[in-house]
Amino acid sequence: MNPTACILVIGNEILSGRTQDANIQYLALNLGKLGIALREVRIIPDIEHVIIDTVNTTRKQYTHVITTGGIGPTHDDITAPSIAKAFGVPWVIHPESYTLLEAHFAPGTFNAARQRMATLPQGAVPIHNSVSVAPGFTMENVHVLAGVPDIMRAMFDALAPHLTKGKPTLSRTWYAFNMSEGTIAEGLAKIQAEFPDTDIGSYPFKIADGRKGVALVTKGLDRIQVDAAAEKIHALIIQLDLTAYEGEPTASPS
Amino acid sequence: MNPTACILVIGNEILSGRTQDANIQYLALNLGKLGIALREVRIIPDIEHVIIDTVNTTRKQYTHVITTGGIGPTHDDITAPSIAKAFGVPWVIHPESYTLLEAHFAPGTFNAARQRMATLPQGAVPIHNSVSVAPGFTMENVHVLAGVPDIMRAMFDALAPHLTKGKPTLSRTWYAFNMSEGTIAEGLAKIQAEFPDTDIGSYPFKIADGRKGVALVTKGLDRIQVDAAAEKIHALIIQLDLTAYEGEPTASPS
Repeated sequence: MNPTACILVIGNEILSGRTQDANIQYLALNLGKLGIALREVRIIPDIEHVIIDTVNTTRKQYTHVITTGGIGPTHDDITAPSIAKAFGVPWVIHPESYTLLEAHFAPGTFNAARQRMATLPQGAVPIHNSVSVAPGFTMENVHVLAGVPDIMRAMFDALAPHLTKGKPTLSRTWYAFNMSEGTIAEGLAKIQAEFPDTDIGSYPFKIADGRKGVALVTKGLDRIQVDAAAEKIHALIIQLDLTAYEGEPTASPS
Repeated sequence: MNPTACILVIGNEILSGRTQDANIQYLALNLGKLGIALREVRIIPDIEHVIIDTVNTTRKQYTHVITTGGIGPTHDDITAPSIAKAFGVPWVIHPESYTLLEAHFAPGTFNAARQRMATLPQGAVPIHNSVSVAPGFTMENVHVLAGVPDIMRAMFDALAPHLTKGKPTLSRTWYAFNMSEGTIAEGLAKIQAEFPDTDIGSYPFKIADGRKGVALVTKGLDRIQVDAAAEKIHALIIQLDLTAYEGEPTASPS
């Protein structure tokens, strides 16, 4: 069994629709490459008791919990103190991070608000990154990243070597044109039943030139089974007298 | 108190990163316009017991639960039968939907897979829409929509008149240029403390011409308080000797 992950997106701005999330897909794809199965995502508001409850529920269920958002200097950035409370530890100045941040700001501007960014749950390990001086941090199996996408990505890159990894998900995709899902559904269900350890998905698509069809995706951890199921899907498409094009096989989810 | 909502995005393709979700922001904005507070989003896989548990947990917590995805004809479309199990009712042919779908397909092509789309939890009310003949449905406070964005939007439009609504969220936004969050954080926290019933958010932005700054968003249900807090934020920006531009006030989240 591969290790598992849950993403917690913390931020009122996503729930209000002000902001389109730009982190979930990036994390999903990159966790897949590391052989970590993303099992759930929750988007929750900047409310202390909600963060505490959600962190404490999910950290027991999954190998890794990755949070994004709420680690800046303003009053609505409450992720770090909330996670300290979730773990029952004090929220304290992290001396190394304090020194780095103090050196970064002009004399006299490293104010109380900015010092919040050097304040971590006791025992947390900072996650440094190439974009911002303010760190994310790891507290046991909870990894706290920024919400701003370029900073989040840099933090994830720094975090990745430290995550418990598994076997990358293997994937093959057949794109069948001029077909609706209802035509292939019955045959597809039989193939799925024959390969219970692969995950067969059916996704209608429409491309820019107006052509439509269904993408048939086979995913799994075992090369032989993924290939065998994908070949059966191809044979089924041919049997239905339809045209199909195979997408590039990937060693990550597709 | 406004009614609340939770969105459940059901689909392996979002968790694998294959697909970028295109429904959450649309639903968030439109729920806000109806005065319905979106409190949580969960993205979960196409696994029966996970769907059942998540639906049964969230439908007790929120006024409305809206699901997207998993109502097509293929084996991986298991939302409808899973919701029947969550409510402890049989999953049965819905005669009216069956007749509509049967008339839609060419003779001999309304096969068993397509008949699944006319099979609903007993007692469910279908949600018809202008794009697809296959219906969504409402089961008590759980509203089941398609995952394909244009079908999902048409279903939401058909559903909206039937939802319990509240007061639209009022919002004002000041864009302060050439400022970092740490500069305004302390003053902003004081304004937030003064207006506990408004929700003040601080979001760094970067625009196409390279200019950067912070968007300061005031949201709430009371016009007088939202305006008073927004004016105090403007005064604070001026006091810091910075330039600000006010975005268009909205009667929905921004």
